Amino acid sequence: MSTFPWLKGHGTENDFVLLPDPDGSVHGDLAPELVRFLCDRHAGIGADGVLRVIDGSKQTYVEDGGEWFMDYRNADGSTAEMCGNGIRVFVRYLVDEGLTTGKPVRIGTRAGVKEVVVHDDGTITADLGEPRVGPAGVVVEANGHQWPAVAVDMGNPHAVAFVDDLREPGHLVEQPTWSPEGAFPDGANVEFVVRQGPYDVQMRVHERGAGETRSCGTGTCAVTVASTLAARQERPVTYRVGVLGGEVSVTWRADNHLELRGPAVVHARGDFDRGWLPA
Amino acid sequence: MSTFPWLKGHGTENDFVLLPDPDGSVHGDLAPELVRFLCDRHAGIGADGVLRVIDGSKQTYVEDGGEWFMDYRNADGSTAEMCGNGIRVFVRYLVDEGLTTGKPVRIGTRAGVKEVVVHDDGTITADLGEPRVGPAGVVVEANGHQWPAVAVDMGNPHAVAFVDDLREPGHLVEQPTWSPEGAFPDGANVEFVVRQGPYDVQMRVHERGAGETRSCGTGTCAVTVASTLAARQERPVTYRVGVLGGEVSVTWRADNHLELRGPAVVHARGDFDRGWLPA
Repeated sequence: MSTFPWLKGHGTENDFVLLPDPDGSVHGDLAPELVRFLCDRHAGIGADGVLRVIDGSKQTYVEDGGEWFMDYRNADGSTAEMCGNGIRVFVRYLVDEGLTTGKPVRIGTRAGVKEVVVHDDGTITADLGEPRVGPAGVVVEANGHQWPAVAVDMGNPHAVAFVDDLREPGHLVEQPTWSPEGAFPDGANVEFVVRQGPYDVQMRVHERGAGETRSCGTGTCAVTVASTLAARQERPVTYRVGVLGGEVSVTWRADNHLELRGPAVVHARGDFDRGWLPA
Repeated sequence: MSTFPWLKGHGTENDFVLLPDPDGSVHGDLAPELVRFLCDRHAGIGADGVLRVIDGSKQTYVEDGGEWFMDYRNADGSTAEMCGNGIRVFVRYLVDEGLTTGKPVRIGTRAGVKEVVVHDDGTITADLGEPRVGPAGVVVEANGHQWPAVAVDMGNPHAVAFVDDLREPGHLVEQPTWSPEGAFPDGANVEFVVRQGPYDVQMRVHERGAGETRSCGTGTCAVTVASTLAARQERPVTYRVGVLGGEVSVTWRADNHLELRGPAVVHARGDFDRGWLPA
């Protein structure tokens, strides 16, 4: 097949190219070169990652593929376990196409099956599981400044630093660093946070290998965990979390799970001709 | 009409959303809000600008609209006179659709009618007209460093600074500045250039209001003028000009016109539903 369909969607401006591939035959193993080209913001379509949509019973990547399996790829072509904004865009697509009602829907990912709920107001909630907090004593450094940080693992590692002003870290060009170096052997996403109220925070995020982004779903969860612990608040607790690309609502439930609720839209679509790929 | 067609193309990764609108009835005055949304790289499609395609005899913007009129808009929604990479992508679209043979084709712009030629190897040449050199004595400054610069007007203002190493200006976050301030009352695009051979240069460009970009067509012409003058070379002269997004060939003809030749591709297309616009 020389052309294939694609769509583009975003959740708080964390954006994705969706590749419908119900029986997995359209894209096979999904070449990293194709992913990189689709995500290229100038020569390609442009996105933070690719969400390939495969029938859960027809994918071969995990044991339980749920109703629909989200084959998530980073913009550099590598695979990733999960993406909190991506899974909400994924379900927005399924609902728009009549492939699920989303009340609720079980989505297979490389980090296990996730339950996602579509609300009447159009927002979508994803259960992102339980956090692991620690190690203690982490310090984040950027532009010659240092901040103590809370380490939170949401399946991917985060370092959350509270600042007095989000302009404090400056216009960071390079990824912030941390000490001790061994705290994050696989790297970390770094969040800078300002508290604006008892349950209201505003953040900026620097993602591993991607630099500053408009939003990061697991990052909003890590920030909620750090903020709840810092204020010694009782669970369940719900925070409004503002990001550069909008805002989401994060609930840390009594059963220790984190729920991310927010907008997700699909806003472009087209057909891609393989002849457009660079030789 | 609730949906309209679009395409996306690029020339050396200077990228554009194309809006076919042969009789001008699809987009009317083309709302700046729509342009900004289409160019948004996260919530929209993503591009450096919009190229609306109108039959030259049916547009009402200029006296002579050529065969096809290029209604060019910057990503911020404002109009611009000309775009050296944009006009090549514009003609690539016309050729792909069978709307011209491009041997040659007269394209109407707000800076007058431009002649564009499509070559058998797929590259496209646009005549970008005559340069105006000066004023002398301009100094460009960035990150605390200073370089003497050659001022070249190609319909839009440029300051060309020769450096020993393209890493010298560093990872510029802010637009470079210049002195005397009055040299560029409307602002300027700043090019940093390294000479690699008698007719071979590599450049980086910081565009007015856009920061560093992958390429700038008029910038490659300004760099060719400055490089030719610096080496006291005879015209006609042809330079290879490398940019972050690829390379082009620029000829400064004996009749003082500059010709920009390089690749241009259309690589995505779709239908946009006006319902996707933010409320």
